[in-house]
Amino acid sequence: MILVNGVNGGAIDPLDRGIAYGDGVFRTFPLYAGRVPHWHRHYTKLANDSAKLQLACPPRDLLENDLQEIAKAYTEGVIRITLTRGTGVRGYAIPEKTLVTRIVSLSPKRSFIAGADGVRARWCRLRLAIQPALAGVKHLNRLENVLARSEWSDAAIAEGLLLDANDHVIAGTMTNLFILRRGDLLTPQLDACGVAGVTRDLIIERATQARVNIAVTTITRETLLNADAVFLVNSVIGMWQITTLEEKTWNVHPFGEQMRSWLTDDQH
Amino acid sequence: MILVNGVNGGAIDPLDRGIAYGDGVFRTFPLYAGRVPHWHRHYTKLANDSAKLQLACPPRDLLENDLQEIAKAYTEGVIRITLTRGTGVRGYAIPEKTLVTRIVSLSPKRSFIAGADGVRARWCRLRLAIQPALAGVKHLNRLENVLARSEWSDAAIAEGLLLDANDHVIAGTMTNLFILRRGDLLTPQLDACGVAGVTRDLIIERATQARVNIAVTTITRETLLNADAVFLVNSVIGMWQITTLEEKTWNVHPFGEQMRSWLTDDQH
Repeated sequence: MILVNGVNGGAIDPLDRGIAYGDGVFRTFPLYAGRVPHWHRHYTKLANDSAKLQLACPPRDLLENDLQEIAKAYTEGVIRITLTRGTGVRGYAIPEKTLVTRIVSLSPKRSFIAGADGVRARWCRLRLAIQPALAGVKHLNRLENVLARSEWSDAAIAEGLLLDANDHVIAGTMTNLFILRRGDLLTPQLDACGVAGVTRDLIIERATQARVNIAVTTITRETLLNADAVFLVNSVIGMWQITTLEEKTWNVHPFGEQMRSWLTDDQH
Repeated sequence: MILVNGVNGGAIDPLDRGIAYGDGVFRTFPLYAGRVPHWHRHYTKLANDSAKLQLACPPRDLLENDLQEIAKAYTEGVIRITLTRGTGVRGYAIPEKTLVTRIVSLSPKRSFIAGADGVRARWCRLRLAIQPALAGVKHLNRLENVLARSEWSDAAIAEGLLLDANDHVIAGTMTNLFILRRGDLLTPQLDACGVAGVTRDLIIERATQARVNIAVTTITRETLLNADAVFLVNSVIGMWQITTLEEKTWNVHPFGEQMRSWLTDDQH
């Protein structure tokens, strides 16, 4: 099911700036028992990311109407909200009057590799570019992710880890990353590149509430390899622990259960 | 007039990876007297850029059919060819079977600032990110250009100049750049970022044939400011000389006429 500006089965104008320039933002999250867990967080991110691109985020109730429309027909699946700057004349300049295109789609939740026993990961060769003007924003310019994900086809490998041009660990191709070191949690700073996900925010907050030390910091490949555990998170998969990273292996760490509980203790 | 996969007035699937990830490439060039000057160069660039993204570029005759269809109805305008990786399931991984979406559109040639007397330019604050994996390719991830172009709205300013993260001069937001220094031509290296345009290639070749020294090299802001002349080029505008760059001014330089003649001496 796909709603384009609220219309089921709507199509996109070939002159939409979403296609022309990747001029827009998106979010992906699960529909679960007919509801969107942490919807207020997803909306806030969409609004904040839109603001960084000078894009007029639609009012919350318009998007909630779309979600309710989908929830009438389905109770489970993965929702993606895409906002583009709409149809424009040719040229990079932002038109004076733009009408945002909003796409709200539901797709079936794919059967991901079960995460409970840990997953296999690899290092990607591609380095994320340093671009502070876009860092953290989940915008539609995602060729780096596409190229990085194209580096492997082995279905047993769940995720690829990305370094940036300074060789700092940033994220997986579709996940944020946390490492556990002597009881403390560390997660990469995302002021140079990467996407700041809702689940990442949630874990940072929950860890703080649970009085677990949490540091948003620079992480090197060595720091990661010497960690007690490495966790990947996003809204759709929840949490995966990496138990194999090329030559390196880890046992399943009990801390993972605590992190999972943080993701499910509050569905609001 | 817009052809989507050869169909006039066709629309785009909202699940197209062009929108989802900016997963594709494009080219923009004029239709002139019912013909596309340097078409073989534009097609070669499209094919080469597609290859860099592992995208199957449509055969040349398919695109030529589209161009002929447009030339039946119009003789002048600006053509944009966009190729995307087509409709895909959710996720960054490139689907095993993809059907490229091709969009061929004609838009009216806007009345640009007349270039004969030189144009005004400014420096952009945004720095282009260093990404060798995508450098030179005219892909659909163009948020940097959109953000840079949004830095000014004064219609008297024709172009903004872009530096990269290393403070090297790379290009204008929509143009390639040449500088004239003591009779030699210099143009920025594009192995870290930027788009390698057809007109840039053409000038490099024509300069070589005309025994003008041409260097593809690192250019600093100081080198540019101390140049005898600075020229901006692309397929649509042809060539503009910058005569005002913020505080700095230049006279119209006679070398500009020679460059213009290189662009028009061979329309094939």
